[in-house]
Amino acid sequence: MNNPFFKNHGPFTLLDLLKNEFDLKFSPINTDQNEYLINDVKNLTDASPADITFFHSIKYKDLAKKTKAIACITKKKFLHLLPKNCIKIFSDNVLFQTALVTAKFYPDSIVDDNNSNLDIIDNKFKNIITGKNTYVGKNVSIGEKSKIGNNSIIENNVIIGKNCIIGSNVIIRNSIIEDDVHILDGAILGKKGFGFISNINKNFRYPHIGYVHIKRNSEIGCGTTIDRGSLSITIIGENTYLDNQVHIAHNVKIGNNCIIAGQVGIAGSTILGNNVSIGGQAGISGHLKIGNNVQIGGGSGVIKDIADNSKVMGYPAKDFKKFIRKNR
Amino acid sequence: MNNPFFKNHGPFTLLDLLKNEFDLKFSPINTDQNEYLINDVKNLTDASPADITFFHSIKYKDLAKKTKAIACITKKKFLHLLPKNCIKIFSDNVLFQTALVTAKFYPDSIVDDNNSNLDIIDNKFKNIITGKNTYVGKNVSIGEKSKIGNNSIIENNVIIGKNCIIGSNVIIRNSIIEDDVHILDGAILGKKGFGFISNINKNFRYPHIGYVHIKRNSEIGCGTTIDRGSLSITIIGENTYLDNQVHIAHNVKIGNNCIIAGQVGIAGSTILGNNVSIGGQAGISGHLKIGNNVQIGGGSGVIKDIADNSKVMGYPAKDFKKFIRKNR
Amino acid sequence: MNNPFFKNHGPFTLLDLLKNEFDLKFSPINTDQNEYLINDVKNLTDASPADITFFHSIKYKDLAKKTKAIACITKKKFLHLLPKNCIKIFSDNVLFQTALVTAKFYPDSIVDDNNSNLDIIDNKFKNIITGKNTYVGKNVSIGEKSKIGNNSIIENNVIIGKNCIIGSNVIIRNSIIEDDVHILDGAILGKKGFGFISNINKNFRYPHIGYVHIKRNSEIGCGTTIDRGSLSITIIGENTYLDNQVHIAHNVKIGNNCIIAGQVGIAGSTILGNNVSIGGQAGISGHLKIGNNVQIGGGSGVIKDIADNSKVMGYPAKDFKKFIRKNR
Repeated sequence: MNNPFFKNHGPFTLLDLLKNEFDLKFSPINTDQNEYLINDVKNLTDASPADITFFHSIKYKDLAKKTKAIACITKKKFLHLLPKNCIKIFSDNVLFQTALVTAKFYPDSIVDDNNSNLDIIDNKFKNIITGKNTYVGKNVSIGEKSKIGNNSIIENNVIIGKNCIIGSNVIIRNSIIEDDVHILDGAILGKKGFGFISNINKNFRYPHIGYVHIKRNSEIGCGTTIDRGSLSITIIGENTYLDNQVHIAHNVKIGNNCIIAGQVGIAGSTILGNNVSIGGQAGISGHLKIGNNVQIGGGSGVIKDIADNSKVMGYPAKDFKKFIRKNR
Repeated sequence: MNNPFFKNHGPFTLLDLLKNEFDLKFSPINTDQNEYLINDVKNLTDASPADITFFHSIKYKDLAKKTKAIACITKKKFLHLLPKNCIKIFSDNVLFQTALVTAKFYPDSIVDDNNSNLDIIDNKFKNIITGKNTYVGKNVSIGEKSKIGNNSIIENNVIIGKNCIIGSNVIIRNSIIEDDVHILDGAILGKKGFGFISNINKNFRYPHIGYVHIKRNSEIGCGTTIDRGSLSITIIGENTYLDNQVHIAHNVKIGNNCIIAGQVGIAGSTILGNNVSIGGQAGISGHLKIGNNVQIGGGSGVIKDIADNSKVMGYPAKDFKKFIRKNR
Repeated sequence: MNNPFFKNHGPFTLLDLLKNEFDLKFSPINTDQNEYLINDVKNLTDASPADITFFHSIKYKDLAKKTKAIACITKKKFLHLLPKNCIKIFSDNVLFQTALVTAKFYPDSIVDDNNSNLDIIDNKFKNIITGKNTYVGKNVSIGEKSKIGNNSIIENNVIIGKNCIIGSNVIIRNSIIEDDVHILDGAILGKKGFGFISNINKNFRYPHIGYVHIKRNSEIGCGTTIDRGSLSITIIGENTYLDNQVHIAHNVKIGNNCIIAGQVGIAGSTILGNNVSIGGQAGISGHLKIGNNVQIGGGSGVIKDIADNSKVMGYPAKDFKKFIRKNR
């Protein structure tokens, strides 16, 4: 699939991709390989034989062994885990190097300098009702019977389904929104995630080439922010409701029929199952897996994975009965 | 009192009110009663002899015994508690059935599809100063010497008193604002509460026919959200100040002279007395009663009622001295 | 330095400054002194011999002994600590009296009634790219190659450096922004702090004559609010990144190279060193000092000072290892 929101400036030769202004170490590449054309950057699983990939954590060694990528950026100590005919590139900072490569393919994904070519929403959108002063970018699609409020901004290439209600002062970019979704006032969808390589003097912003996918029948509350993914997609499942002032970070995937109360925060790359309910102000750390049918009490701080059908509360969150007993 | 914000589409016959697309169980109603005209849906106390009401929790049995409503939706096991000549309707899901009835009377209260008939604010408002690009709906009233910023939206029927200052990017709907109130930039008042009947595949949105009432001399911070009530009113008392990014859910009632710091969240239907102070990021669960002169420390999670003159802190919140002693 | 954002309406005679509608007690001042002209109100350190100052907490006694101010408002019991030829004014409520004096010098600093003299941003700003419907006040400066989104408001006297990216729906007032800063959608900078003198019936708003200073290479997330200082400046250091929905209160000073995750709140007058990282939803009480290289875990509630190089977590925040051990 082509990326619907960011233009791929490739292909590039491997040599072009890897030369950059920063002082990083690479494995030697023979002259032939320098001229190989690389189409895209993908994760270990999705990479095709014309793509480059990366492998930064031993957690992913099984995927690494099977990658079809023509080249892989990894740590020196992981080189032996890669397939024989995969070109091996090593670096002391795999994520930084991957960020540089991604930035080369997708230079527009690093900052969100807002589209300056917006038009006032007008009668090219049949069968939708819009408020005042709402602007849309190029190539935006809005399904019939959808309504949009006032002072909202819908940037290039956004897709909005049928029967959606988009409020006022809403900003949507890099997002695909299915049918029957309600996005309430002041919500901001699809900005780049809070991901960067720390660097004294000037941080390096990680490119975010993913997008936000809101599935059908969902509702996003007032002032809620949902960041787009880096190399992955941020997903809100079907019939999942988010209350006001919720923050969903990049790469988070939320299942179907979830209920997420006000001021909840979910950090990057965490995955929630179906039928999860989360009380107000609870926070969930990044890179966790929350099972199906989980209930998380208000104010909880979740710092490890939670199994299916669990009910937890506290900071750090523990079994709900234990929390109640301890605090009687 | 007529509802100032939502048009009552009644009266309806009882038969019309209770037939709907969902498979619910009712008590048999005799043919005569089918044709009774019902004017409105009200709570147990406010219902007049031409209104329908509901009774879903044993907590309210004393009110139920005295209701004047012509009909009441309740659980089978509560039927005997209702007055003899009240028509008794039973359902396995009282709130869902009440929601369906409310939605029939007030179909416009279910979603907040923004008014599309706004006008740029202009000289029909004498003696007020407004910024750029601010739009108002029909029948809006703004008192003299009030000021309104830029890019704000004030929807149909909103009442704003004298000497108010409304910031920029503010959205106000379904709200009555008394004199000398300041609403700071980006605040969103009067949207529907986060209440719905969970349902696999497609939740049923609970109608919110209440409004927001901000009393005189109060201040609402930047980005703060205050939801309107369902069948009740959300109230911010006199001289009560809310800081930035506070979230006040539907039906909450806050007394006078309260101080509520940044990022506090108060869940639905909780009632606060006068002179309550709440530190930053504290959260209060729903349906609680917080007394007068209560102090709640920053970051606290309040999960039960708090008596007058208490000072609490912690998660869950306990006596302040105990919290300090335990954490020394 | 002249205050760049608020016009000083002084000088005033001491008599004019101290007479007001409120019933406060003062030390007797002799007739000569009544006519002294006072230029400004400053803190104990910054006050010159033509300024008035205030001294409200014994914490500051060493600074009080050395103040050059011509007059000082303080408590009766602190009078002997002031320099001999400093005119001594005493009050039971030093901060309230100081607020009244400040309000006399700077009457425009009490409320943020938005500038009503904004212009659509246009070609007086060379070399910048702007979106739709963005308005700027008088005397705004924007550096070359900066970009500004849609529906944003930039009020009088704001200074924005070069190569900045300002998003959509952003509101900036009373702020100085250095080069290469990114302010993301929906952020609100420079509003008055949440400071006031509580008073039954009608609180007295504390004047906020400070501003917000964002240093170079920093990033401010979506929906984040940063309040201006009262008599001091709110500072975000160089290369410091704030995520979405963060709240920074008045007078806070954050060092360089800090990383502050989503929904963090920092209360008034707290000072952070350099290289501080704060996890999501953590809160920090007011008037604290957080050292350099401090790491604060997500969800923490910090209620006392933290030494350099510490790693803390919990509510209240304690040593990280203790937190983990206790919660194993």
